[in-house]
Amino acid sequence: LPTPCALVEWEAVERNTARMAERVSTLGARLRPHVKTHKCVEAGRLQVRGHFGGITVSTLAEARLFAAAGFRDITYAVPVAPARIREALGLARGLERLTLLLDSEELLREVERCSAAQQVRASVLLKIDCGLHRCGVDPRTVEAVELAAACSRAPHVDFRGILTHAGHSYGCRDREGLRAVAREEREIAVGFAERLRGEGIAVPEVSIGSTPTLAVAEDLTGVSEVRPGNYVFFDALQVALGTCALEDVAFSVLTTVIGSFPDRLVVDAGALALSKDAGPTHLQPGCGYGLVMGEQGVEPLRVAALPQEHAVLLPRASKDLRRHPVGARLRIVPYHSGLAAALFDRYVVLKGGEPGEEWRPVRGL
Amino acid sequence: LPTPCALVEWEAVERNTARMAERVSTLGARLRPHVKTHKCVEAGRLQVRGHFGGITVSTLAEARLFAAAGFRDITYAVPVAPARIREALGLARGLERLTLLLDSEELLREVERCSAAQQVRASVLLKIDCGLHRCGVDPRTVEAVELAAACSRAPHVDFRGILTHAGHSYGCRDREGLRAVAREEREIAVGFAERLRGEGIAVPEVSIGSTPTLAVAEDLTGVSEVRPGNYVFFDALQVALGTCALEDVAFSVLTTVIGSFPDRLVVDAGALALSKDAGPTHLQPGCGYGLVMGEQGVEPLRVAALPQEHAVLLPRASKDLRRHPVGARLRIVPYHSGLAAALFDRYVVLKGGEPGEEWRPVRGL
Repeated sequence: LPTPCALVEWEAVERNTARMAERVSTLGARLRPHVKTHKCVEAGRLQVRGHFGGITVSTLAEARLFAAAGFRDITYAVPVAPARIREALGLARGLERLTLLLDSEELLREVERCSAAQQVRASVLLKIDCGLHRCGVDPRTVEAVELAAACSRAPHVDFRGILTHAGHSYGCRDREGLRAVAREEREIAVGFAERLRGEGIAVPEVSIGSTPTLAVAEDLTGVSEVRPGNYVFFDALQVALGTCALEDVAFSVLTTVIGSFPDRLVVDAGALALSKDAGPTHLQPGCGYGLVMGEQGVEPLRVAALPQEHAVLLPRASKDLRRHPVGARLRIVPYHSGLAAALFDRYVVLKGGEPGEEWRPVRGL
Repeated sequence: LPTPCALVEWEAVERNTARMAERVSTLGARLRPHVKTHKCVEAGRLQVRGHFGGITVSTLAEARLFAAAGFRDITYAVPVAPARIREALGLARGLERLTLLLDSEELLREVERCSAAQQVRASVLLKIDCGLHRCGVDPRTVEAVELAAACSRAPHVDFRGILTHAGHSYGCRDREGLRAVAREEREIAVGFAERLRGEGIAVPEVSIGSTPTLAVAEDLTGVSEVRPGNYVFFDALQVALGTCALEDVAFSVLTTVIGSFPDRLVVDAGALALSKDAGPTHLQPGCGYGLVMGEQGVEPLRVAALPQEHAVLLPRASKDLRRHPVGARLRIVPYHSGLAAALFDRYVVLKGGEPGEEWRPVRGL
């Protein structure tokens, strides 16, 4: 295999997706897995097994790819840019449902305007903020209730309910912290849904979830569906968070040693293979850009510098590096598999450790 | 234009490339510009104007693209992985010269073995380390001289000379620091070349250079060629270093406001549009992931969080954000244009501020 090369271990994907599907069933919710980590149909098909087949996407390019592959119920879980609503509604025509996210009056106005013009009803979820402070209305406010009411009244909008994402779980320090965020994610969403129902607003969908919160969630009462995504591949960040074991990580980058010096190694996987995601610096300051894997597991090497097309590996403690000569192969498990995977045109899928089929992720808008 | 969209200002590219070409001529060296920042033929053609036409690449994919476009003299400026030497030598057959880089006996042995097997002579430069401590032999050592001697004796190697890159210039704090690194880059390279010549080794090529060191270099005596690359586009890091003005930056990412909250904005350019390069944190701690440009220039906004497909902009000081409503367009100048540009399939080229042609960068290996 020419390097750098994106490797996906099929058995790990199969195991990760089966476990999550079962876990979510046991907890009594529907699974609408996110496909943004891998952006390819094959992994999406493994994710939906045993569930209703709905998925979550982060781009309209993903939506188009999965729609073409037969997925019929898709939630586009980033608030839609006004100029792309028309395109999204057009894509929705061929599907059972393409649900859009919104979190402002302006967006509601635009969605209503476009769906009226296109003579369709837009399926809509209201995004609420449960502590991440990125997208989403503050569910404690009157404005949040008013916006939900406005959605439910809008003539060309099919108001589906509410959605939140506890992405701040990635900043937790331990499982106790994760459990607190997971509880809050559910309570805030379910509480807000109850408040809306108290106002006479129908809220069929209460959608929550992230891989870390799903890893520890004990109660999904009142939640209709969950949307984890990273668990398909996992990554070194999830290992650091304790939400998976190292052997669960399905994605890595194969690289070749191109320089072997007394004090450092140089390999041919750079920022355009690993991404410059800084990893869980709150847990492991100076962690570098990934875990270096040799034949005996994690090597005591830090991905210390990451130029565009190569990387410098330094020993974590003093150590003779000479046992990795020029030409040797190493694998690097990145901290953020979604960002690294998106840098490749194809993933080489290993079955029983042997390269077999290739999966091709979709790119762009 | 659908967002996120990579914008290239043609006038800035034209001006940046003309200036660098003239500057290098005035200093008496040849320009072998690096194309890795943009990876597209159109920008490469602007770079070589007035010079001999040679270029520098960071991947064999770039080498193939430019070879197909008629470029005849290419230096592949990353030490070649042993398994890719055969491919590189095959590509060299159709060219005047494809020069490979090496910095170890192992690589020399592999290059000699492959070129003997393919019955060609491999054009080779020895990479030396002038302080960056990534690739390259330490030119103060006996081993460095011995490796150069071995290159010059190898029957299937055409030893072209030495190459260095003062990438540590990117860590400088001011122009005085840059000037010191630029002087050192030249002196170490020229000094080592002289030492080799003293040993009877022919050193036709002494190749140095980075955009920051070329911005301040006052003397290139003894240097045959220079290889800056970033100057085509520049970026927010170069602005912070003082090696260009903001109006020289040719690359930016157009984005749409999808959330406008009292305390923050959310835009639709995420880590897959800007890259997670952390920028010049040694100069500007907490600088975020780029400079946000509005109609009146730099906005007092920090790209504070960068999920995969969207970004959160926070005020640098307290400020009402409401003047950027949902749907508004902003441009973000990333800190590392090479990494951001590589995330796009195409750049929309603006002439006189109007979108015209598109340039398509090459991707992958």
